[in-house]
Amino acid sequence: MTLLADTRFATRRRTLAAALAGQRIDSMLITHLTHVRYLSGFSGSNAALLVHKDLSCAIATDGRYTTQIAEEVPDIEALIERPSAQALLKKITGPRRVGYEAAFVSVAELENLQQACGEDVTLVPVTEVVEKIRLIKDPIELERLREIAQVAATAFEELLAAGELAIGRTERDVATDLEYRMRKLGAERPSFETIVASGPNSAKPHHGAGDRVIAAGDLVTIDFGAHGCGFNSDMTRTLIMDHTTDFTAEIYEIVLAAQLAGIDAATPGTALVDVDRACRDIIADAGYGEYFVHSTGHGIGLDVHEPPWAAMTGTGTLEPGMTLTIEPGIYVPGKGGVRIEDTLIITNGAPEIITKINKNLHVV
Amino acid sequence: MTLLADTRFATRRRTLAAALAGQRIDSMLITHLTHVRYLSGFSGSNAALLVHKDLSCAIATDGRYTTQIAEEVPDIEALIERPSAQALLKKITGPRRVGYEAAFVSVAELENLQQACGEDVTLVPVTEVVEKIRLIKDPIELERLREIAQVAATAFEELLAAGELAIGRTERDVATDLEYRMRKLGAERPSFETIVASGPNSAKPHHGAGDRVIAAGDLVTIDFGAHGCGFNSDMTRTLIMDHTTDFTAEIYEIVLAAQLAGIDAATPGTALVDVDRACRDIIADAGYGEYFVHSTGHGIGLDVHEPPWAAMTGTGTLEPGMTLTIEPGIYVPGKGGVRIEDTLIITNGAPEIITKINKNLHVV
Repeated sequence: MTLLADTRFATRRRTLAAALAGQRIDSMLITHLTHVRYLSGFSGSNAALLVHKDLSCAIATDGRYTTQIAEEVPDIEALIERPSAQALLKKITGPRRVGYEAAFVSVAELENLQQACGEDVTLVPVTEVVEKIRLIKDPIELERLREIAQVAATAFEELLAAGELAIGRTERDVATDLEYRMRKLGAERPSFETIVASGPNSAKPHHGAGDRVIAAGDLVTIDFGAHGCGFNSDMTRTLIMDHTTDFTAEIYEIVLAAQLAGIDAATPGTALVDVDRACRDIIADAGYGEYFVHSTGHGIGLDVHEPPWAAMTGTGTLEPGMTLTIEPGIYVPGKGGVRIEDTLIITNGAPEIITKINKNLHVV
Repeated sequence: MTLLADTRFATRRRTLAAALAGQRIDSMLITHLTHVRYLSGFSGSNAALLVHKDLSCAIATDGRYTTQIAEEVPDIEALIERPSAQALLKKITGPRRVGYEAAFVSVAELENLQQACGEDVTLVPVTEVVEKIRLIKDPIELERLREIAQVAATAFEELLAAGELAIGRTERDVATDLEYRMRKLGAERPSFETIVASGPNSAKPHHGAGDRVIAAGDLVTIDFGAHGCGFNSDMTRTLIMDHTTDFTAEIYEIVLAAQLAGIDAATPGTALVDVDRACRDIIADAGYGEYFVHSTGHGIGLDVHEPPWAAMTGTGTLEPGMTLTIEPGIYVPGKGGVRIEDTLIITNGAPEIITKINKNLHVV
């Protein structure tokens, strides 16, 4: 069988070379595994990739992946040697300026890389080059993101239909069942540790899923995602058990209004800080500003959290093809909290919401 | 309610301060999250810890964890500010030499840390200090490791008893069921992506769990672990579907003999290279040396893979209180492979095997 390389990877490497053209770099060493996968298709847990400015390449991994790398990366000859990045650097001959990913190479690792280089090789720190290319998703990436978001959404709907979110069950029981359903629907794993935060625990934005037994009157915040083909999904719903109170109904409606305002703001050309502000202002105006203790959202793709950042300190503006979560929350210690989160694809018009689950106040 | 700090964390910080005493370091900045948890008990996903040589401390996280850090770390006042490490450095007054974890701080992050420091603060790279303390597990850590290994072992036995490893099912089906059973038994999540590698896939040491349907005659390698309370387990069994062939029975018996030799070698004072050699020699003598393409084993604890390393390039010797996996394998491309893995606790005598599942040749 002849394996044909997916031409997307070569296209991305060409974009990388073009992005580096102004930086007097002869070759770029990629060591962040997410970036190796993005630029070559290799999904193993140890690898390094060297992309030369003439677009010739070298890739390295270790003996566990000899067969896998030949299948996944048929267009680049693989070096089977570890440490992989050092093995690639040792092969370089002649004077070269080699870029490395300064955000992903540790200070200790840089020393190892330098020792592997010949005398006329200069290592040059490079930041945010692949990240910037990854900001705008191509149509196949967007399709993968829609699919994996739908896996998670369907699992959640099945969970509710099966009555698995119920008074008397523990948070952990609910998380276990939700993860099992995502897995059955094709997820390789959860994108991150599933959060099921009930009652007072819902006031902790990053509670896990513990032994607390869900009770009548509880707010239950479920923050979850599925991972498949390298891509992630991320969404949050807060449900109310048995009955609302003035407090739970009030904060729910405020967060929902803030979340809808955030979605409305997520149009091309809008500054990320303004998306954050759209959510934050509504919560602050309602008197709960001090209880919205995190940022409004983040991009998602091969990483669960990646640029762009919708935050008070966010920079830049939205463009079509970006992804963004909108996830405002209110967390009142000791009383409870609400968070509602969708993932959007930025388009030329209104954003496309790929986390298609009802978010009106839902009493279970 | 008054929360009492677990005194183990203060004890570990004292050990850290003692280990640094010879290095002219006034304070140590801990940014690797595993190490923050080890030294403070905080389990959130963003934090930094500063341990001064007088054993006073400061810890920082962001607003998502205000409640959680107060509960988990009652003995250290928390700064709620991000970026957390920079926030801690900004608070330092007066001349100080501050160590940082050079293996876990990226080149780009170091620049940010340096900008946060006052003029008379000097950042000093430190390597392998916490790692060395963590090498020897205390009795409570060992108990957690036994418990989580037992969760995984019980789940595996239940899977076999329920007939969930069966001809006609996919690798992914089996992985899904095994993970669900681990979860039900108390695991927070798998320690790593569960491997179910059947037939020719068993020749790929790090195959995941795909859509291949398990067939009669297959070798099926299942490499799995459970995660709980911060700790991990790791074990591998290879089973044979329906019937053996000369090839599958032969490589199974060779790998088993190698694995038992590795366990026998895992006694205090033995060099790590010799543990590796004990396994490797048996496989090489049987004529399969080129097909054992990875190292013999690794330590396990708060990380799935951590020192010590039983490898051809391993350094140092075993000591009581260390953990070590013994996991030789034979992988013949196109034909199939076998790996058998246990996790050991090194004791004063024979090692304690904490992954208690039968490993005789097992035809399902």
